[in-house]
Amino acid sequence: MAQWALAVDLGGTKIEAALVDAAGAVLPGSRFRLPTGGGSSSAELEAGARAVIGAAYAALPPGESLLGVGIGSAGPIDVHRGLVSPLNLPAWRDFPLRALAEEVVPATPVVLRIDGEAIALAEQWVGAARGSDNLLGMVVSTGIGGGLILGGRALAGPTGNAGHIGHVEVGGMNVPCLCGGTGCVEAVASGPATTAWARAQGWAGSTGEDLAASYAAGDAIARAAVQRSGTAVGQAIASATALLDLELVAIGGGFSRVSPDLFGFIREAIARRSPFPFVAKVRVVPSGLSDEGPLIGAAALIHRADYRSEV
Amino acid sequence: MAQWALAVDLGGTKIEAALVDAAGAVLPGSRFRLPTGGGSSSAELEAGARAVIGAAYAALPPGESLLGVGIGSAGPIDVHRGLVSPLNLPAWRDFPLRALAEEVVPATPVVLRIDGEAIALAEQWVGAARGSDNLLGMVVSTGIGGGLILGGRALAGPTGNAGHIGHVEVGGMNVPCLCGGTGCVEAVASGPATTAWARAQGWAGSTGEDLAASYAAGDAIARAAVQRSGTAVGQAIASATALLDLELVAIGGGFSRVSPDLFGFIREAIARRSPFPFVAKVRVVPSGLSDEGPLIGAAALIHRADYRSEV
Repeated sequence: MAQWALAVDLGGTKIEAALVDAAGAVLPGSRFRLPTGGGSSSAELEAGARAVIGAAYAALPPGESLLGVGIGSAGPIDVHRGLVSPLNLPAWRDFPLRALAEEVVPATPVVLRIDGEAIALAEQWVGAARGSDNLLGMVVSTGIGGGLILGGRALAGPTGNAGHIGHVEVGGMNVPCLCGGTGCVEAVASGPATTAWARAQGWAGSTGEDLAASYAAGDAIARAAVQRSGTAVGQAIASATALLDLELVAIGGGFSRVSPDLFGFIREAIARRSPFPFVAKVRVVPSGLSDEGPLIGAAALIHRADYRSEV
Repeated sequence: MAQWALAVDLGGTKIEAALVDAAGAVLPGSRFRLPTGGGSSSAELEAGARAVIGAAYAALPPGESLLGVGIGSAGPIDVHRGLVSPLNLPAWRDFPLRALAEEVVPATPVVLRIDGEAIALAEQWVGAARGSDNLLGMVVSTGIGGGLILGGRALAGPTGNAGHIGHVEVGGMNVPCLCGGTGCVEAVASGPATTAWARAQGWAGSTGEDLAASYAAGDAIARAAVQRSGTAVGQAIASATALLDLELVAIGGGFSRVSPDLFGFIREAIARRSPFPFVAKVRVVPSGLSDEGPLIGAAALIHRADYRSEV
């Protein structure tokens, strides 16, 4: 008899829920999704959360057992009080999402962590980081984020917000970041930051997909833009590795697929740190997760409880 | 009856050993020091290590017990094989310092860790970070280094080299670092980097002490130089806190005392990150350790075994 986790992924554009088994597979017919978005009211967000969690819960096969609810949320969060304040959902500030899930799914433990931790756990469980105990799971997309597993255990930090690799600064980059930093890798190397830079150099496209097409067609500006992004990501990973002695970084997210060459540029930037072998050693690989990654990660908060952060 | 740790601190300019009790106090008459230095041969370094460790061991009061030998070493090290390769001691590459200590002090456990971890443990034990479980112990001197305690446990990393805050890059800074990085905080903000920058602006002094005197006298270049150093240190701490959700940073080292204002500049740089309260929250304080700090930290590897890193 299967043992299920009810996985919930809350992001800036959608909330999803599904039942996931102990091997990391989603139960067909149990996955439900509704849009969120910065224009949503708190009541709309709450109704959406109740709807998708309730629908996934109702999909539990009769007689089978639910081990727990795992929620991976966009940050910041308050992990001790179970509150979420996703940067891109201004209607939710200190919203009690854990309590909501406890109400919709009675008599079941609910675990809330930041989405970056969920991603890192998923990479270690069923993704590209199997077997590693010292890794960064990273997403390069509209924003840049991540989660850490150090010494075999995810790191939440005292407020639950560890893993914000997107706000590690990049040497030599003067771009101001919305967070108050200078040259944060998110402000330099995200999809929107990179296409904006390319346009400023005279490139005529608009989206990350356009940039991927221009790159594939040999456009010189597109090449420079992707190289700039990869170099910045590599520099941020090198800083993180100097600090944490990381073994492996698995990178997913839409913009990470702009070109396979992106990974070459990332690795070149890290290889420049060869005087410190413990920095240059870090391996950078594409994510091993499908688009179900965030949900699998939320399920890992339950099925891989030994690896999730202690708070 | 006292229980002693034999503490050993290996640095680029000296090796020291002493007996330290369970309250973090050095036994008078048990502290021995010899110079090291980049020009030393391996045989000279080895003779020095045997001499200071042997002398401290011989100071053990008759009938009292030695719990273990704790060694804090300049990095890099190989924590698994017990080897040291201090950057500033080129004659020692993969030198088996742990085995040497095991030979000089028979039948006693020997624990080797990087000096940054020892410093962090000392700050948490008897210094400025008592009560914190999420901290960076940092040294700003000829170089910039540090050690991390995360979730109540020091972090060694898989090769034992975690904590290299000096090689975290600083946004906007183009200074090349010997490690291959760009704008590493050590290359921007260490004592020598800061005095070199001041001289390039026309300042006539030479040492960090000169710079402290010029700053105290109101010299405009000295002020700009100290501000630049503090700002860079603050930016590096902000990046580390975005990644690790740190609560507290305790900073020691000779150049950290160039002016009390240095800490103001550090805090101003961090305060710019106010859009992320979990970053802006990190407190930065002067080290609570005396010049015995590295030795106390090496002793903490024995007396505070529950906090030292698992490797």
